[in-house]
Amino acid sequence: MKNTFGDNITLTVFGESHGSAIGVVIDGLAPGISIDEEKIAYKLLLRRPSGGISTSRVEADKFKIESGVYEGKTTGTPVTIIIPNENTKSGDYKATENLARPAHADYTAYMKYHGFEDRRGGGHFSGRITAGIVAAGAIFISALENKGIYIGTHMKKCAGVSDRDFSDLTEDVKKLINMRFPVLSGEAGSLMQEKIMQAREEKDSVGGILETAIIGVPAGLGEPYFDSIESKIAHAMFSIGGVKGIEFGKGFALSDMVGSKANDAFRMENGKVITETNNNGGINGGITNGMPILFSLAVKPTPSIFRVQKTVDFVKGEDAEIELKGRHDPCIVHRAKSVADALSAFVIADVLTGRYGTDYLAD
Amino acid sequence: MKNTFGDNITLTVFGESHGSAIGVVIDGLAPGISIDEEKIAYKLLLRRPSGGISTSRVEADKFKIESGVYEGKTTGTPVTIIIPNENTKSGDYKATENLARPAHADYTAYMKYHGFEDRRGGGHFSGRITAGIVAAGAIFISALENKGIYIGTHMKKCAGVSDRDFSDLTEDVKKLINMRFPVLSGEAGSLMQEKIMQAREEKDSVGGILETAIIGVPAGLGEPYFDSIESKIAHAMFSIGGVKGIEFGKGFALSDMVGSKANDAFRMENGKVITETNNNGGINGGITNGMPILFSLAVKPTPSIFRVQKTVDFVKGEDAEIELKGRHDPCIVHRAKSVADALSAFVIADVLTGRYGTDYLAD
Amino acid sequence: MKNTFGDNITLTVFGESHGSAIGVVIDGLAPGISIDEEKIAYKLLLRRPSGGISTSRVEADKFKIESGVYEGKTTGTPVTIIIPNENTKSGDYKATENLARPAHADYTAYMKYHGFEDRRGGGHFSGRITAGIVAAGAIFISALENKGIYIGTHMKKCAGVSDRDFSDLTEDVKKLINMRFPVLSGEAGSLMQEKIMQAREEKDSVGGILETAIIGVPAGLGEPYFDSIESKIAHAMFSIGGVKGIEFGKGFALSDMVGSKANDAFRMENGKVITETNNNGGINGGITNGMPILFSLAVKPTPSIFRVQKTVDFVKGEDAEIELKGRHDPCIVHRAKSVADALSAFVIADVLTGRYGTDYLAD
Amino acid sequence: MKNTFGDNITLTVFGESHGSAIGVVIDGLAPGISIDEEKIAYKLLLRRPSGGISTSRVEADKFKIESGVYEGKTTGTPVTIIIPNENTKSGDYKATENLARPAHADYTAYMKYHGFEDRRGGGHFSGRITAGIVAAGAIFISALENKGIYIGTHMKKCAGVSDRDFSDLTEDVKKLINMRFPVLSGEAGSLMQEKIMQAREEKDSVGGILETAIIGVPAGLGEPYFDSIESKIAHAMFSIGGVKGIEFGKGFALSDMVGSKANDAFRMENGKVITETNNNGGINGGITNGMPILFSLAVKPTPSIFRVQKTVDFVKGEDAEIELKGRHDPCIVHRAKSVADALSAFVIADVLTGRYGTDYLAD
Repeated sequence: MKNTFGDNITLTVFGESHGSAIGVVIDGLAPGISIDEEKIAYKLLLRRPSGGISTSRVEADKFKIESGVYEGKTTGTPVTIIIPNENTKSGDYKATENLARPAHADYTAYMKYHGFEDRRGGGHFSGRITAGIVAAGAIFISALENKGIYIGTHMKKCAGVSDRDFSDLTEDVKKLINMRFPVLSGEAGSLMQEKIMQAREEKDSVGGILETAIIGVPAGLGEPYFDSIESKIAHAMFSIGGVKGIEFGKGFALSDMVGSKANDAFRMENGKVITETNNNGGINGGITNGMPILFSLAVKPTPSIFRVQKTVDFVKGEDAEIELKGRHDPCIVHRAKSVADALSAFVIADVLTGRYGTDYLAD
Repeated sequence: MKNTFGDNITLTVFGESHGSAIGVVIDGLAPGISIDEEKIAYKLLLRRPSGGISTSRVEADKFKIESGVYEGKTTGTPVTIIIPNENTKSGDYKATENLARPAHADYTAYMKYHGFEDRRGGGHFSGRITAGIVAAGAIFISALENKGIYIGTHMKKCAGVSDRDFSDLTEDVKKLINMRFPVLSGEAGSLMQEKIMQAREEKDSVGGILETAIIGVPAGLGEPYFDSIESKIAHAMFSIGGVKGIEFGKGFALSDMVGSKANDAFRMENGKVITETNNNGGINGGITNGMPILFSLAVKPTPSIFRVQKTVDFVKGEDAEIELKGRHDPCIVHRAKSVADALSAFVIADVLTGRYGTDYLAD
Repeated sequence: MKNTFGDNITLTVFGESHGSAIGVVIDGLAPGISIDEEKIAYKLLLRRPSGGISTSRVEADKFKIESGVYEGKTTGTPVTIIIPNENTKSGDYKATENLARPAHADYTAYMKYHGFEDRRGGGHFSGRITAGIVAAGAIFISALENKGIYIGTHMKKCAGVSDRDFSDLTEDVKKLINMRFPVLSGEAGSLMQEKIMQAREEKDSVGGILETAIIGVPAGLGEPYFDSIESKIAHAMFSIGGVKGIEFGKGFALSDMVGSKANDAFRMENGKVITETNNNGGINGGITNGMPILFSLAVKPTPSIFRVQKTVDFVKGEDAEIELKGRHDPCIVHRAKSVADALSAFVIADVLTGRYGTDYLAD
Repeated sequence: MKNTFGDNITLTVFGESHGSAIGVVIDGLAPGISIDEEKIAYKLLLRRPSGGISTSRVEADKFKIESGVYEGKTTGTPVTIIIPNENTKSGDYKATENLARPAHADYTAYMKYHGFEDRRGGGHFSGRITAGIVAAGAIFISALENKGIYIGTHMKKCAGVSDRDFSDLTEDVKKLINMRFPVLSGEAGSLMQEKIMQAREEKDSVGGILETAIIGVPAGLGEPYFDSIESKIAHAMFSIGGVKGIEFGKGFALSDMVGSKANDAFRMENGKVITETNNNGGINGGITNGMPILFSLAVKPTPSIFRVQKTVDFVKGEDAEIELKGRHDPCIVHRAKSVADALSAFVIADVLTGRYGTDYLAD
């Protein structure tokens, strides 16, 4: 289904970096969900490039809701959000447009689209396309918060520097929701920023790990085959450029543990079933158990670096060299957080709608 | 879509551990693909429990192709494979059927199905259901091999012991295809088996990491949003019980690298575009680049262990203890390989069919 | 999606006329729906050929539920029903297997499946495949009846003879549910049977029109684009061999009416909104209005007739003649009723599950 | 899937009559299809209301392609077309907004969307939404014409007046492609227009029957279950407001014929298999046989009439009367043709893409 995702609610993205606009269509949303345009604007702001990690003033993307909202609430018909592209001077790209930027999609897009792809600024592969997802996500996030479900993501690691672990999950999650550079430890955050700046000076880039917690999700959501909650979340997350790995709960570390340590013992607490540890990240057999859903994403270093790199001219079929110009973030880990939160909210909203019916997410 | 997966070809699984049969329906296969029943039998044999890692003689599951095959070839209509359940004495399970086995799906299934689920032997959550996937996989694997595409998986790590890395990928992959305990280093394999036996004696279990290589896949397959090859493979793999993480190429290790090390430089070789390293696992921007697809799966330790564990009676809502009886593998990593290979083959077959049309996979 | 249909519940059919079995997988059914195997057997009996319209004793197809039912209720996992094929002597078909029976699918199947199709007895195109749909339908019909929704179909016309119109809809529908030769007027029924017998003697065949009423469906189901209730029902019905037309409410007759006659005036009755006429068949703008859903199906005369017919040998590409042998019903209109009822029930069950959630259809 | 339709190519519609814009997203189109904006404009013009059937000057809807087209050709990524709404003065509608217009979707929308629906001008149910479909259709129609596939639709009947039957199909189809009031007989057309004018004077409305022919479609397209060509076309057509019936080939008339008359005899002609008659409308067993696809649509009279009608206030639950004001076409049959052609082209393009692969429709 390509650019459409979801079973009960669907998300359709479109647009290219240097076309006239990008946007998103959300279908299947319950009628009667309040739309907070300021919140959408704020979420878009968090996703914006900020000159690397600098705090220089940036403006949010302008957006327009073209359909599906009336008198401040969803109508139940498709919600379309358009974000016009500005400053789309394509500049001098023609000279290098047949050179594959290493670890980018230039060559693979050429093999898929036979040269008809719009290559300006990365075209449909540009990170800019995720602005539509983030705008849509603001709506899902609000709707879930109304149901007591909260999503928080921090940079567990960035540029080799580790943030502190989650401690009081509820407090940590709420703290993270609106952070631009989402870390739990301010000290770690400062060190990360230092390393990012250093990478920039070295014309290089860095990556990191995002860790997401979703709290308040009821038990019993998901399917054994093939739509486990893990399957659906993973499917969504690998649409984020730069994500190359995902693990739930203790993930890869579980593979080194013995069963007697890895298993999460159940226990009653205040009349509710809980687990004493949460190594499985809130999911057993693909289905939520009512504990927080926990997962981590490996984000590779930004492929755009300013050193001379070896590559090919894929039209001529010749070896070549490429040296990128312009402005690129040496780190996109903190920006990927906005997309991860949006897609997490989407998946949970989609599954809840399937389980409890089309009106469930209304205010 | 629950128990059905795929866009152009679909795979539907059904059955419970102690019902009369389990099975699979494959729809959308090209007409004219040769069916080798012996190969299906062999792949089913590889998946069978073998008394842990022992070499004691086991028999393959019996299966019957009920539809979609005529005179040894697919007809183009749905292929249904039924695998009858044998030895389904349910025994004394009633006494403990309301106790949630830790890290199993008993509690989550109860929250989803309200007690109507068939709990005998894990019901629909039993690893046995994957036999249908493995049988179907044998067909996809054959069809891909006819097109020069091969899939090999080894235990990169098991019980804390590491296998050697891939070296000559073509040779390694072909060696692994039919291995029951798939390791590249015999020495590492022996040590793993020793550790698994030790875990069994300690009434405990172990996990590991599977690494899969798919060679011969053409460039240009996959979608930027939302059906990247990574999304589709990850979606499939999280249907395997025990898988809690996936990474492509260098995956989580990439998050610690700088861009200048992580980026895979392009180069021409014999008129073909290749990359000098393959840190991205053959995928750029969600689309294949013609290099081998590489991914690793984190498999948690078998949740069934023979120690007394703390848990709850989820019907009464009370704390309880559980001590499992019977036979369970202290390690399922090597058996999960069969399912990983089958699902890998399915995803590639599905994408190729979409790209090149419904007849593409015919002999 | 080919052999799978449905959004929230899915129905997958498989099998060939002369293979070992045919069957169906139903996925997405709520857990906790009672399964009445006698009712399934009875519905299968209604679908059986009976020597044209004779009352000679026939036996129901034998069937086996292989999965998804435990202790008499659905578990929430896929329900698979297998119906073994018996008496599949393929006889002398080889001599004529390359001759296209007029108005049958022999030639089109050949063009689609390139000769790999199983042609014995019509293969996957045989009316026999609908037995799986009818068996599944028995489950949906029961579940809907528990919610006060009833489906009745009569032969509005057959062999040129018209049945009486619906009068007291509730009474008529309940009368029709279990009729083998479903007519409201016994006199019309006798005349139809006479005409059918006459067609048989003339080595010819007849068609007719089925009219279905679904009562008790709540208002507000369906979508404006593209999943109107009309779209979903029509999609389902054109899977029945021989159906060449469908109309809702007054259908084609509406095209000759003026708006002031065609429009259904609304009125309150006992606190409920009703319409004074029901020319629109219970659907406005693609969405149910709470009035009975009414639709009619055009069923063409059985294509199997015993006269010499002109045709081609599609392998040789030559003109030819064909004269069918064996037993074929000169009329299948009454048998198509079983499939129409089953698919009607499926569509309504599917839409209700989407609207009210996965547990809605439980007892 | 609601507002998204299609398997290999998808069409997503959005917008409300009095919102800021309506539009469409087309995904899955081959890269390299030429886009002719003038053709899109012309097709939009044909769909426009023209003061009933008058020839008064109308302007085409303005539209903007926001994505998926670069240098005049499709890129292979989603094509989004936005059509801004103009003149959306909502006027005095508040006074009557709770009164259900008979045979319109006001009441059913209220039952579905609970009053959150945008009721101005019919909201998402307005015929205006089909402008997006028509714009998209212009692209599919061009792409098919490049492959030798042509679609023509005439008003077989309108206001009780019959057009002449198809005679030379190729010539007739090409003649119809760009007709605003599509009839084969000029005389019949004049009479229809007279009757429509008369209906307007009587504050009433009329309906009719559209007949569509699709020529040049290869044999072998479609599926026996559940995606017959008939199922897919019917599914699409019931998204057109006012369509209440569809029949393929001779359709309902077939139900009165005997098999020996209804069956289409096969014959070789110039090395190609043809049928002597085409009672089955080019489809056998759900699959195309290479003959022209023929189907007819029953279009009910426009529900908007200017007489006083009985209805209810669905918020108060009271009987009421309604008298519509403003401008409404007394006949929409000729306008529905634009949508029928667009959706026909979409379905064929979708099926061809599935069969022959994602690049098939490129120039």
